[in-house]
Amino acid sequence: MKRNIYLKKKSLEEAKAIASEMANLVRLGKEMVSVIHSMGRVTAEPLFAKISSPPFHCAAMDGIAVRAETTYGAIEDTPKRLVINKEVFFVNTGNPIPTGMDAVIMIEEVYQIDSKKVEIREAAHPYQHVRSIGEDIVATEMVFPQNHKITPYDIGALLASGYREIAVKKKPKVLILPTGSELIEPDEIHPLEPPSGIIESNSYVLSGLILRDGGEPVRHPIVEDDFQKIREALLSNHEQVDLILVIAGSSAGSEDYTRSIIEESGEVFAHGISMMPGKPTLLGRFKDRPIIGIPGYPVSAIMAYEELVRHLLHRLLHLTRPERPRIKALPTRKIPSKLGTEEFLRVKLGRVEEKFYASPLPRGSGIITSLTKADGIIRIPSLSEGLDENQEIELELLRPLEEILNTVVMVGSHDLTLDILANLLGTYYPPIFLSSHSVGSLGGILALKSGICHMAGIHLLDPDAGGYNFPYIQNYLKGIEVKVINLVHREQGLIVQRKNPKSLKSLVDLSRKDISFINRQKGSGTRILLDHELRSLSIDPNQIKGYEKEEFTHMAVASLVASDRVDAGLGILSAARAMNLDFIPVAKERYDLVIPSIHFGDEKIEKVIEVIRSRKFKEEVLRMGGYNVSMTGEELRITNHQVSITK
Amino acid sequence: MKRNIYLKKKSLEEAKAIASEMANLVRLGKEMVSVIHSMGRVTAEPLFAKISSPPFHCAAMDGIAVRAETTYGAIEDTPKRLVINKEVFFVNTGNPIPTGMDAVIMIEEVYQIDSKKVEIREAAHPYQHVRSIGEDIVATEMVFPQNHKITPYDIGALLASGYREIAVKKKPKVLILPTGSELIEPDEIHPLEPPSGIIESNSYVLSGLILRDGGEPVRHPIVEDDFQKIREALLSNHEQVDLILVIAGSSAGSEDYTRSIIEESGEVFAHGISMMPGKPTLLGRFKDRPIIGIPGYPVSAIMAYEELVRHLLHRLLHLTRPERPRIKALPTRKIPSKLGTEEFLRVKLGRVEEKFYASPLPRGSGIITSLTKADGIIRIPSLSEGLDENQEIELELLRPLEEILNTVVMVGSHDLTLDILANLLGTYYPPIFLSSHSVGSLGGILALKSGICHMAGIHLLDPDAGGYNFPYIQNYLKGIEVKVINLVHREQGLIVQRKNPKSLKSLVDLSRKDISFINRQKGSGTRILLDHELRSLSIDPNQIKGYEKEEFTHMAVASLVASDRVDAGLGILSAARAMNLDFIPVAKERYDLVIPSIHFGDEKIEKVIEVIRSRKFKEEVLRMGGYNVSMTGEELRITNHQVSITK
Repeated sequence: MKRNIYLKKKSLEEAKAIASEMANLVRLGKEMVSVIHSMGRVTAEPLFAKISSPPFHCAAMDGIAVRAETTYGAIEDTPKRLVINKEVFFVNTGNPIPTGMDAVIMIEEVYQIDSKKVEIREAAHPYQHVRSIGEDIVATEMVFPQNHKITPYDIGALLASGYREIAVKKKPKVLILPTGSELIEPDEIHPLEPPSGIIESNSYVLSGLILRDGGEPVRHPIVEDDFQKIREALLSNHEQVDLILVIAGSSAGSEDYTRSIIEESGEVFAHGISMMPGKPTLLGRFKDRPIIGIPGYPVSAIMAYEELVRHLLHRLLHLTRPERPRIKALPTRKIPSKLGTEEFLRVKLGRVEEKFYASPLPRGSGIITSLTKADGIIRIPSLSEGLDENQEIELELLRPLEEILNTVVMVGSHDLTLDILANLLGTYYPPIFLSSHSVGSLGGILALKSGICHMAGIHLLDPDAGGYNFPYIQNYLKGIEVKVINLVHREQGLIVQRKNPKSLKSLVDLSRKDISFINRQKGSGTRILLDHELRSLSIDPNQIKGYEKEEFTHMAVASLVASDRVDAGLGILSAARAMNLDFIPVAKERYDLVIPSIHFGDEKIEKVIEVIRSRKFKEEVLRMGGYNVSMTGEELRITNHQVSITK
Repeated sequence: MKRNIYLKKKSLEEAKAIASEMANLVRLGKEMVSVIHSMGRVTAEPLFAKISSPPFHCAAMDGIAVRAETTYGAIEDTPKRLVINKEVFFVNTGNPIPTGMDAVIMIEEVYQIDSKKVEIREAAHPYQHVRSIGEDIVATEMVFPQNHKITPYDIGALLASGYREIAVKKKPKVLILPTGSELIEPDEIHPLEPPSGIIESNSYVLSGLILRDGGEPVRHPIVEDDFQKIREALLSNHEQVDLILVIAGSSAGSEDYTRSIIEESGEVFAHGISMMPGKPTLLGRFKDRPIIGIPGYPVSAIMAYEELVRHLLHRLLHLTRPERPRIKALPTRKIPSKLGTEEFLRVKLGRVEEKFYASPLPRGSGIITSLTKADGIIRIPSLSEGLDENQEIELELLRPLEEILNTVVMVGSHDLTLDILANLLGTYYPPIFLSSHSVGSLGGILALKSGICHMAGIHLLDPDAGGYNFPYIQNYLKGIEVKVINLVHREQGLIVQRKNPKSLKSLVDLSRKDISFINRQKGSGTRILLDHELRSLSIDPNQIKGYEKEEFTHMAVASLVASDRVDAGLGILSAARAMNLDFIPVAKERYDLVIPSIHFGDEKIEKVIEVIRSRKFKEEVLRMGGYNVSMTGEELRITNHQVSITK
């Protein structure tokens, strides 16, 4: 079985230099476009004004045009009367100054005597309220150089300088060729059947990016992993485009044909870039066209695009690549990274008490949501072994700073009602964003202690006292004054396959030999609940098959059950319902938000409470099932070991 | 004659609050769009994943799927052989894991024995190289909330979560109604005739801005200043749109009807905003539609749009308005501003030795090029009387910072060959920008002395010694080591009307009673030349009609001659040629660039010299006429009072 081996890996800088060189293979033509549709296009030649603007001396005010000399001597006590259409002419702003006239007196200072005469009470000086010809643009001056990207403002200057059409560079045409036998087109999925393959989405993401960057995407339908078919697609399409992107097939797998096809009909300049995600990128030439092999994983594909394809397109259009805005932030934890590889770490950001904190999102190159949820990207240089927790680093923003400043950061346990909360917060204006990180209840408490979040969402049973949350708060958050707001009460139970084919009845059945289980991570409220219940039922965890396997959210647990991977997991009713699974109730628990008192008074925190207390929130929560909202939004307090609602 | 009087002027903050309220008059509907064309649209409802991604457990690598258990015990010394399509199955990245299998061994570690068997030399652990169902997106989780603007990345997440179409907010439709009897449509100008009116460009600029901001512009043809016609246009179109912009007619002139039309059929909320440019803006309601009266001057129109219309559109689409990036800079001179008015001052920026300097552009609201040439905008607050020269201020960037860092700042005398230089510098990659400020030769020398520019362009005759430039450099730039590079030699002379109807022959004729003249400003090389020549001819400047009137560039002088405003001015041949005028030679002069030695070594400065020395530059200069390039690009030095070329 023939396999590819990467050429000596290139650094990202080397790869960019190669991409720049590849731009020289392309000669973009020019075309005429009407000025009014030229926004975003790039001038193909310097544009010299055809006419001046204003094109003649014109009135800068509504009023009368006069010859200044004829007004000399007019003062309040001895006004002058002038004959209309002989000594004075009515003009409006923008009207040409009639021949012989050289000044304008504004209408407010003109007194109409009768239909033939006006009176003025002050003399005018030459050029007064007159816009001179060419005051803005002088005919023949250069209005824009070549390689200039037209903005909406520029359209005004171009029209004023007499242009109706201008010569612009043609948009670079980019062929996008998605390959892979595992792929299906987005319109091949059916509402009621599970998808038969992976939905091909990369080509559409790349199309959007190409449009954003001033190119013209030309998407080819999916081609299966077949040497001849991929080669044929390239041979029959390459002449119509300026640049070719082949998605997938540039890795080191047995059916990765991109490299050998390029070697046959062109040249491979680089294969393997020391960046992550994005390593299996290939740079080359197919016939006389530049070609880039884009990795198939969505985040890798985007990184390869943003770092190399975009670079090449900017080079073709001769535009300076705008950098993303940057800010400094503190990583919320130590993040090791591979030496020798430039890593693009996606992070969520939050500002808590004047400091920005960056929480890493999943690093897998298959996780597109690690980009769509990201607020920023940290570039970990190839010579670094990672980031330290307390070491400020610079990052590139993916969202406007204003949105990040308006983001409430919640860390802790996962609950489905947080989606409802996030959505309702976004309906305020300006919108408030909720960034929630599922690290388990205890993780939330610790994050709150470190001051890196605004609130923690917890449901921590105290096995000894039997109560929820307060014992942990008292234990871990000494010295931090907090308020506790109830979000919901919810039902925890066994999530099992539809119609419960293995007839589970309670936690006791988990120790059955024919039952496989999926656990939640240590420190999560659900795990503490499970361990407590197992102890009280005297079940040895070692008897439970799968006890050592951990997932981080209710939905991940439900998802494993739904796909027949395991028979059961402990989770909330709403997760079971969402996946259409059966549910065996185990316990009711209280899910609270713990918020340091210092954050009260911060408008966005107040809004969170406001939403939680709203009827709309409670209604939507109840609709999900498995929740009780009788205490939702209430501030809870502990007195004499009894939890009570603050009135 | 009925005239409008502004209502009590509103502050910009008050006006913005009113615009926000006006947004409540509009209820945007929703529509379905296909995901692949949804970029830039705003979600109308929260979007919950229809399917998980990946939709099944799938291979994360090309290789073989195995059941981990069957591989246990395999090590280098005692490999295991497994039966293809029974114990192992070949899979490629993205393929579903066959039933019963739970791990993938990558192809690099698989040794094919024959067509039926493979050998492995290391055991696999469960889940190895397997992407679990829902690893990225779990069915039913919220992928995006409502009010979310779709990015290209988001398209990937939406397709992967099973969406083909999504519900988005309809684009706000904006009627743009340009009014004014002085206006002509851009296609009414003829290549060979001077324009008969002012070209209507505001509506196209606003259309571009509305598109940029996610709206749908609907441009109405120009309506003349006629109460009935404007009213009729509004009455017959208002129901089809969400927002109305009426351009011009909201000022205080006699034919400014916007306000009375609105008062008749709606309500005026504000008329007159204390901002500059943009004061004559009107906010109101026409029937039940929000309406904004946009001032007619182009910069005012844009400012009214950016501050108020954009604000309203963001409000309608429920998007956070992104702020422009900001930097701090030093104004190059004191800038007084009107108390009680928020001024938007357009500036050019340059970085010279680590400091950013901001030079104000013309402040007139009719000067569109003050925006198209601007690098940034300084907001001078209404409670400020202006800016001080040495007081750092914050400004909003209109261009990417990268471009400003790559800008060479030249201050001094104006010359048409600078356009050629600027255009050729832009052909490098990344492009180099030339920002040239016409303040006269002496102004250039003084700017260089203050360190606010990279080079000065001068042509200063020393009337006593008769030489050019060096006496001034020696005099004004003591202690600053500079290099002097010749740009061109050029011809100065009298610019007169075509065919020289008044038969001027030399400067002597300027004292004729029937001749009107336009002068250049004090400190300009041309002015010094004129004064020197007049002295040597014993002509009294007081005899010259117009000697006291000053313009700042050759083209402004030529333009006044071309429009019959004056009979003559002193300027360069190329300016006369550009405007198709006659020219009477007076003197040849040397135009040099003076560059502090510290800037040599700065790549962008070196490129300036490189372009000046290029054949292409010289050829293009010669094509303009009136120039001599025999010393162009040479470094000049003074030895024994003789200027010589450095070898």
